[in-house]
Parts: sequence; structure tokens; C-alpha cells
Amino acid sequence: MPLVRIDLRRGKPAAYLAALRNGVYEALRETFEVPENDRFILVNQHVAEEFDCDPGYLGIARGEDLVIVQIFCANTRGVTQKKALYRCIAAKLAADPGLRPGDLFINLVETARENWSFGHGIAQYVEAAVPPR
Amino acid sequence: MPLVRIDLRRGKPAAYLAALRNGVYEALRETFEVPENDRFILVNQHVAEEFDCDPGYLGIARGEDLVIVQIFCANTRGVTQKKALYRCIAAKLAADPGLRPGDLFINLVETARENWSFGHGIAQYVEAAVPPR
Amino acid sequence: MPLVRIDLRRGKPAAYLAALRNGVYEALRETFEVPENDRFILVNQHVAEEFDCDPGYLGIARGEDLVIVQIFCANTRGVTQKKALYRCIAAKLAADPGLRPGDLFINLVETARENWSFGHGIAQYVEAAVPPR
Repeated sequence: MPLVRIDLRRGKPAAYLAALRNGVYEALRETFEVPENDRFILVNQHVAEEFDCDPGYLGIARGEDLVIVQIFCANTRGVTQKKALYRCIAAKLAADPGLRPGDLFINLVETARENWSFGHGIAQYVEAAVPPR
Repeated sequence: MPLVRIDLRRGKPAAYLAALRNGVYEALRETFEVPENDRFILVNQHVAEEFDCDPGYLGIARGEDLVIVQIFCANTRGVTQKKALYRCIAAKLAADPGLRPGDLFINLVETARENWSFGHGIAQYVEAAVPPR
Repeated sequence: MPLVRIDLRRGKPAAYLAALRNGVYEALRETFEVPENDRFILVNQHVAEEFDCDPGYLGIARGEDLVIVQIFCANTRGVTQKKALYRCIAAKLAADPGLRPGDLFINLVETARENWSFGHGIAQYVEAAVPPR
């Protein structure tokens, strides 16, 4: 159920964007108990005046490749799992597409399990999934 | 006060987008006690590499017409109302623009009533709406 | 740590967008105890059919210049601070770029402090910031 929003500067090739999406999905699978194929990822690409992020906050060097990963998910994980997720996303994206770990900003927004519908207007996580007619 | 974000693939005509916006607004009115004209809807259209959603998670067939509806709203509704909202959005969008009910993903993000300002820098839901000078 | 999303109609010059971003950042600094350089602001510009906001809800006149400011932040401020933030954003943006105070919609979404990573896959607000290798 995570809904992922990835924001970055415009101009990367499609394979680069695919690597970002794959890495976030794989990290969610490995650390956040996300089921296979529970993959819903949106990307927004920005021109310079739409992407205004500090290049040094907290002593971390950020450049034009900065990637903002915002993950909306259920409120069922603790701090240990969250730390593991951050580390895993950083490692996955460092491996492919070669993202500098400083160029990764992550924010989680948690919601109740009843706050999700995956189709057919049904809240699948809290009611029986009635087969569609 | 709901702030609605609709994400979908680029390429639909304006009337199709209007039907999506109208259907979500009408469903909020009918099931979520949203006042008349409390309508704030943003749409983001994506090219293929920006829209990466699984075509079969939970056994629901999703296609290129998949619509992601994310609704930021106050935390004042219970599970029964949320289920009714999902069903109503699905029904409205099936009627117009003819969206397959499998092609509808919904996520609610709830916040406190004090977290909203509708203009003039005033938190209208928790303080008197001072008339602007 | 605030992650700010600004949505508005397409067509404003770069200096106008910069004034919006600056005003929100300065208001966060002055009213929300946001550290210097804690600045992460994303802008989305929309065509007409992507931006559907009521022109009169709650008796506030909104026009084509309406700006939606959504701020994701930690859940550490009370109502008094939130009211001060709204007032300050409205005042800053009225001064520059000259935004009508009715044309400002603000929504806060609060999350736990552990829900943020500013780089290197570390949750800087709840664990020691290990220097990168």
C-alpha cells in the first residue's frame, strides 16, 4: 500500500528513473514487509525554479541530482524498521542508478490501514474483498 | 477542506479530467459531510516513466487508465464513512467518465482541523474568520 | 525538515516563484522554529484543467493566482504556532510577490520526527548522524 512520490530535477533518462523506482520498491519489500507487487510509484520532474532544496543542511552535500522520496504508508512500523528502510533505499540507489547517498531525502507519512482502497471502491485492508461483478 | 490530488497518465481530454474532478467532489459531498463549494482539486498528469503502478496487486486488474486519488482531509470520519466514500467515488467515476472500478486507487491522509487555512492567513476551522481589511 | 509543496497555475515568471518559495521559508523560520537552511520546497505548475479550486468557499474571493501551500512537517507545534505560521505566510507573500491574502490556501500534514532522513539513509532527528565514508 505504500504510495510513493519521487521528485527530482528534469532531465534524467528513462532507465535512470526506472532504477530509482526499482530501488525504492525493493527496499520497501526487504525492510517494510510490503507484499510482492504492492507497487504504486509516481514521479514528478521539475525545472530549476520548481525545485528549491538546500545544498548543505545538516552538513550533507546535496547537488542537482537530489531525489526527494515521499512514502505514504500504513502506520504499522516502528523506528527500527524505518531506519532500516532509509539505509536500504540509500544502498539500493547508490548501487543503481549510482545516486550519491547525500542526494537522498526521505519522508514517511503514515495513515490508518482503513485509509486505502486498491480498486473497486473497497477498503481491502479492513473489509472482505468482494469480487467485482 | 479536503485537498485532493489526482494522478494519472497524460493524454485524456479536458472533459475526462473534469469528470474525474466532479465525481470525487460529488462523492465527498454525499458521504463525507463536505460543505458545498469546499472544492480544492489538483491534477498531475504523467508520462509512462513517471507512473509505475502494479497491474494486478490484490487480484485487481489495472490498466493505463489507472487513477490515483489522494485526499488530504480532517480526521473526523470513521471507517463506515470511509468505506462509503470509496464506494461512492468508484460509482461516480464508473458513471462518468466511465472508469473501470479496478482502475481506481484511493488514499486518505488525515490531519487536525487546525491544520487548514482557506485564505487570509486564518485557521478558519479553529478561529473566528476575521474579515479582511 | 518541512517538505513544502507549492501548487499554482502555470505562467508566472521565475522571480515570482522565487518570491513564493522565499516567503514560505522565511515564515517557517520566524514562526515554526525551523533551522536555517532547512529548506526543501517543490513547486508544481498546472494548466487550467489540472487546477480546480473554488472561487468563493467560506466567503473568500480566490482568483487565478491562488497558491496552494502544503507543508509536511514534524508534529511538534501547537495551535498558536500554526496560526502564527498562517498569518506570517500571508504577510510575506502579500509583501512579495504581492499575493492577495485570499489567494492563499495552506495545509499542514504532521508526521513523527523519526519519519525524516536528510541524506545518507540516516534518520538524523533520532539517531547519531554517522559521518559518511
